[in-house]
Amino acid sequence: MNNNERYEKGIEKLMEFTTENDEASTHLKIVEHLKDIAPEVGQYIIEFAYGEIYTRGRLTNQQRALVTIASLVTQGTEPQLELHINTGLTAGLTPEEIVESFVQLIPYTGFPRILNALTVAKKVFSQRGVAVKGEEVHS
Amino acid sequence: MNNNERYEKGIEKLMEFTTENDEASTHLKIVEHLKDIAPEVGQYIIEFAYGEIYTRGRLTNQQRALVTIASLVTQGTEPQLELHINTGLTAGLTPEEIVESFVQLIPYTGFPRILNALTVAKKVFSQRGVAVKGEEVHS
Amino acid sequence: MNNNERYEKGIEKLMEFTTENDEASTHLKIVEHLKDIAPEVGQYIIEFAYGEIYTRGRLTNQQRALVTIASLVTQGTEPQLELHINTGLTAGLTPEEIVESFVQLIPYTGFPRILNALTVAKKVFSQRGVAVKGEEVHS
Amino acid sequence: MNNNERYEKGIEKLMEFTTENDEASTHLKIVEHLKDIAPEVGQYIIEFAYGEIYTRGRLTNQQRALVTIASLVTQGTEPQLELHINTGLTAGLTPEEIVESFVQLIPYTGFPRILNALTVAKKVFSQRGVAVKGEEVHS
Amino acid sequence: MNNNERYEKGIEKLMEFTTENDEASTHLKIVEHLKDIAPEVGQYIIEFAYGEIYTRGRLTNQQRALVTIASLVTQGTEPQLELHINTGLTAGLTPEEIVESFVQLIPYTGFPRILNALTVAKKVFSQRGVAVKGEEVHS
Amino acid sequence: MNNNERYEKGIEKLMEFTTENDEASTHLKIVEHLKDIAPEVGQYIIEFAYGEIYTRGRLTNQQRALVTIASLVTQGTEPQLELHINTGLTAGLTPEEIVESFVQLIPYTGFPRILNALTVAKKVFSQRGVAVKGEEVHS
Repeated sequence: MNNNERYEKGIEKLMEFTTENDEASTHLKIVEHLKDIAPEVGQYIIEFAYGEIYTRGRLTNQQRALVTIASLVTQGTEPQLELHINTGLTAGLTPEEIVESFVQLIPYTGFPRILNALTVAKKVFSQRGVAVKGEEVHS
Repeated sequence: MNNNERYEKGIEKLMEFTTENDEASTHLKIVEHLKDIAPEVGQYIIEFAYGEIYTRGRLTNQQRALVTIASLVTQGTEPQLELHINTGLTAGLTPEEIVESFVQLIPYTGFPRILNALTVAKKVFSQRGVAVKGEEVHS
Repeated sequence: MNNNERYEKGIEKLMEFTTENDEASTHLKIVEHLKDIAPEVGQYIIEFAYGEIYTRGRLTNQQRALVTIASLVTQGTEPQLELHINTGLTAGLTPEEIVESFVQLIPYTGFPRILNALTVAKKVFSQRGVAVKGEEVHS
Repeated sequence: MNNNERYEKGIEKLMEFTTENDEASTHLKIVEHLKDIAPEVGQYIIEFAYGEIYTRGRLTNQQRALVTIASLVTQGTEPQLELHINTGLTAGLTPEEIVESFVQLIPYTGFPRILNALTVAKKVFSQRGVAVKGEEVHS
Repeated sequence: MNNNERYEKGIEKLMEFTTENDEASTHLKIVEHLKDIAPEVGQYIIEFAYGEIYTRGRLTNQQRALVTIASLVTQGTEPQLELHINTGLTAGLTPEEIVESFVQLIPYTGFPRILNALTVAKKVFSQRGVAVKGEEVHS
Repeated sequence: MNNNERYEKGIEKLMEFTTENDEASTHLKIVEHLKDIAPEVGQYIIEFAYGEIYTRGRLTNQQRALVTIASLVTQGTEPQLELHINTGLTAGLTPEEIVESFVQLIPYTGFPRILNALTVAKKVFSQRGVAVKGEEVHS
């Protein structure tokens, strides 16, 4: 593949993670945001991350989103976590799956990272008008 | 639930992640290993991590294993990664899914963490006699 | 212990770390904050962290607060650091001990983490109307 | 050297990293900011970091700034990154070199840290009225 | 203070953290180990870390050791953790306090860091012939 | 560029960082090592890291090596640090510059990361038969 083809393929894949509306083009906004300072970085995200990595087989879009979210929670890089909770929802993860993946990480990262992640998720869910459905917990 | 019930429930869940043979009782070996120095820590892993967290709904065992592995790769805590590649395989993840989850993390953690994770996976796969099936990649 | 007993015991212990006034119920505010998105996480904090871990023997509340603060400074998880500077003060740590524990970490984490921690402490001390007493340093 | 001499030497070196104007005395503002809570920390930064470390030979000021920036990007400690992009520019690094050092880190830290670093750089460049000169990238 | 005085003061303080026997001079072994490659780093540890930081007031040697250990567990820097479990014991921390400080960190770092820290502690305790005294835990 | 061209370009650039002898083909050994488990990862390192990033302008090979080393020291990913001390030397960094870049990081990461990095450097320098030239330090 030449770079144009990888870019095309990346954009196409990226579209599977973005809605038409508000956050639709968050990634493209990042590309726009980087235009003056490091235009190639936006290009690498589309060509390499989306064009080469996300388009590989073996994992579904939802699995890729879950793995990505788990890494970002662990790193504590919150602006990217916000973006990928959005793309995860668009790719088909439910709010329950996203929150539950945070809960699963409590034994592996401790509570602080998870509390911060939940604050980010709460904001995203509210912006998108989605909610976690209640569930009976142990008693 | 009282502590005994949580412990029972934890052991039961843990068994879904362990085989009968070699690494079968790795977690129980950890409990044994901790006996003289911090017996309660082994107990907390079973009661809290397995008894309370892993037994919750909303995610399959495979999803929980994937999320856990992604966090351990990101942290670079290799002894635990080794254990959870084992439990992930037992819980039903394929070698391909595990390796692919590492590849998915390249754009989010960089290559060093992934290279170290692949070395650990290679060792585990060899011990268990499993292999990643070849796949045509871009050309 | 069943979960109710652990919850009770956790709340009781938590009260030793909270004052009646403003930040009094910060942890309970967290529980409130999590109610809609992940109510069990607030419960785990009280049952597991406070009910099981903090109620163990061998360390005083002040030692537990010091250890916790050192970990949060090292991680750079500032919202939780703010909370635990508050609980540490309520548990009996002096502002001097808290600041000194940051200074002790300079050789182990470098200056950036410590400067950020001092900014958080300055804010908390000001909110609570406490101050670090001056002390002659080397000359 | 006694502490006064180290302090003098540190201030002198620090001046090579600070302009007369706006951000000129950012480090000294930090010293001022710490005065009430931990005056010695400001002193250690000047005596130890600038007086002992930065004044050593073998690396130029620009090389020291580059190494420091690479570490801060990797840690994700953004307030300090902002400061050291400023001091790096004053020490003679070009905006292009700073941005390029971020790009070089993509394979080693992944995109999230780099995107956050670019946001910080964009702010600093705008405040100082400098810009990255465009450059043809691969096509 | 001039550098000689700081060095003297540092060595004196360091002695409070080292026994006469085996691990007695671990820090001095580090200085020896660094002699050919970076002799000043050993000097900075003694002059700055021990001569300036450890000799400050407000915290006891035990508190300093506890704070240091908590940071090293959180970072996962195990060679240094091994050293500081040793110096902590010499400074008067009990094996129980050290292990308990690990347990206290479970809610803040998760289990992996703590399991690795316990493995290091087990090795050190065995080398020094000390043991954690058993204690009834919840039932 | 198509993938073949990027691969070619990557290998060509990689050669500037590798000698003919012992560690000559360390990166290629990595590619070999990954062949059975994740052949594309070796390819991405050459195509993306070397073919796209390292071949950009604005920084010299030495500057790129310095920035990379600083990030790896900060992360504590030692196998990769060992590799990049080797490639840094081949690219023209002196042992003195490498060690000095570690010393520069003491105020930004603390001593533990630097001590571990020095141990790695000592091993690499010894394998390559190079040494840090002595230098008078403050007195």
